[in-house]
Amino acid sequence: MPMMIDELVKAPAAWMSRRGAGVVISSRVRLARNLKDAAFPGWAGEDECVRLCGNLKQAMARLESLQHPLFLDMDKLGDTDRAVLRERNLISAELAEKGRGSALVVAGDQHVAVMVNEEDHIRLQAVRPGLHLRSVWNRVNAIDTELEEQVGFAFSRELGYLTACPSNVGTGLRASVMMHLSGLKLTGEVDAVLNGLGKLGLAVRGLFGEGTEAYGNMFQISNQSTLGESETEIIARLTAIVKEVAQHEENARARLMESRQTYVLDQVARAYAVLTHAHVLNSGEAIDLLSGLRLGVELGIVKQLSIAAINETVLFTQPGHLQRLAGKTLSPDERDMYRAELVKSRLQQVGFQA
Amino acid sequence: MPMMIDELVKAPAAWMSRRGAGVVISSRVRLARNLKDAAFPGWAGEDECVRLCGNLKQAMARLESLQHPLFLDMDKLGDTDRAVLRERNLISAELAEKGRGSALVVAGDQHVAVMVNEEDHIRLQAVRPGLHLRSVWNRVNAIDTELEEQVGFAFSRELGYLTACPSNVGTGLRASVMMHLSGLKLTGEVDAVLNGLGKLGLAVRGLFGEGTEAYGNMFQISNQSTLGESETEIIARLTAIVKEVAQHEENARARLMESRQTYVLDQVARAYAVLTHAHVLNSGEAIDLLSGLRLGVELGIVKQLSIAAINETVLFTQPGHLQRLAGKTLSPDERDMYRAELVKSRLQQVGFQA
Repeated sequence: MPMMIDELVKAPAAWMSRRGAGVVISSRVRLARNLKDAAFPGWAGEDECVRLCGNLKQAMARLESLQHPLFLDMDKLGDTDRAVLRERNLISAELAEKGRGSALVVAGDQHVAVMVNEEDHIRLQAVRPGLHLRSVWNRVNAIDTELEEQVGFAFSRELGYLTACPSNVGTGLRASVMMHLSGLKLTGEVDAVLNGLGKLGLAVRGLFGEGTEAYGNMFQISNQSTLGESETEIIARLTAIVKEVAQHEENARARLMESRQTYVLDQVARAYAVLTHAHVLNSGEAIDLLSGLRLGVELGIVKQLSIAAINETVLFTQPGHLQRLAGKTLSPDERDMYRAELVKSRLQQVGFQA
Repeated sequence: MPMMIDELVKAPAAWMSRRGAGVVISSRVRLARNLKDAAFPGWAGEDECVRLCGNLKQAMARLESLQHPLFLDMDKLGDTDRAVLRERNLISAELAEKGRGSALVVAGDQHVAVMVNEEDHIRLQAVRPGLHLRSVWNRVNAIDTELEEQVGFAFSRELGYLTACPSNVGTGLRASVMMHLSGLKLTGEVDAVLNGLGKLGLAVRGLFGEGTEAYGNMFQISNQSTLGESETEIIARLTAIVKEVAQHEENARARLMESRQTYVLDQVARAYAVLTHAHVLNSGEAIDLLSGLRLGVELGIVKQLSIAAINETVLFTQPGHLQRLAGKTLSPDERDMYRAELVKSRLQQVGFQA
């Protein structure tokens, strides 16, 4: 039996699972693909989108590599469900705005998701906790190959895969990692490091992707160019750079613990204090404070708390998940109060000795 | 036997005593006086200052109204003692810089203090918790009269009492109240109210007087003009205005508790949380957070804590008092750590239910 959306909402998100501890939280690869001899979604009419979407869903239902996926038509999803999917990074802000003729296909373990008729006909992504771009690429590549045999993709010998936006033409590949750089933030070096990444042709985004703020010192780092390098080259280069950034972060943490331990203790203790006492907590502040607690766990300062519990709290305090938990629509003020209550009850039992 | 400075340091400060609860924390009146036929301290040489200081101390030792005062020569006080006296508002920033020929005379209950050879030969002040300008004036006036009989003051029929700075000529009187305006701060009205006071010819200063910041939403409000109004007129006018400001503050608090109770609870709970968890706390932040807790006590949100305990904590976490408690000189970083420990141990036993 295929998974239902209610189950999906209760499960941990792939990008923030139990194993996503450490500096590199998760690795993700997505491919942009389009059907040959068909207009891009932005140019096709709604009926044409519905027809293409139906064909693609049929083709994907037959794929062994998708493991009994969940099919979700965008026009059947309410605002809260869209928000939930967005918060799990299963859909983009753009797909969240779409209706009839667009869909999301999610593999049983939520590690693979396919957006149908977003900007391109197909946006295929796979995610794994930790730094594992190569194996994530292998999984995406296998699904891509299986799907291409069924439907055929728009491809040019000179340019590679054709996409709606020229920035994706070629490999159509975007590889990204989510990093937690709170050590570099505390030492004041994070901006310099991130600027350096820009000069290497990488893009830096916030926790929830394009156009979102970097709450909680969590940054998505990804390749910008999709032309002139092979898929494996892109992935090897990004992996090497991410390892270097991770090393910078580890060094910053070691220096902090060596020479500024009280300052780190203070930051972690204050985060815990506010999280367990606030009566009003907005989503950005909650992520920022949970990031402080996360650093405390990773440095061994906070003992009775797991990264999995923090990840879950970050996710379940997002507006969509929060309203799902409450079972009703909440105003922003109500959400801030409900969020504070939720965080308090989850963390107060933990206790804190620092 | 006269009080020693060690006893003075351990006692509660007059301006922050047990009874200083509510919107008006304390009332203060000070008089500027100069000896007739003697150069102002800024014009007199050091030897002349020493001679005048000796005469004044002798005269004051005879005053019944000073109740066995403590005599402190400024040149015999170390940095920490000067800081302690400053934090108790017993001396000004200017006297704290003085040496030989300047002194402080403090009455046994610390409610009356006389600075000798600050800007003027005599700066006589009295303080009481709450709004009691009239009775404070009566006390100052009695001492002033008794002292004038002994030494004789520089006085002009046209101008009144003569002072080193023209802004004090006339009555030489400055009356001030310390107010805790955290309700108006939370409603965003405090700036408008304080600007209004400026238009009424009143001066607004921070907790520790001229040139200090208004930490903890505590403001000193005082008359600026010392000419053209009698002492009792100045005091009656200031009392009337302060009552009005206090009413504004009470109204703001009532409105907050009626329509934004969660927000107030949140502010108070966060203050308590950080005070009981921080490992590093600077002096300004400590006062700000203690102000939040003070509001909580006054609104009945925080039950197991007295205003006296908060006042004492504000005072004992100031740099001078802190170093007195530690029994040694502390660097600013050490102070911030020691302060955090002190506050934590004082408040953690209180518990908090909000």
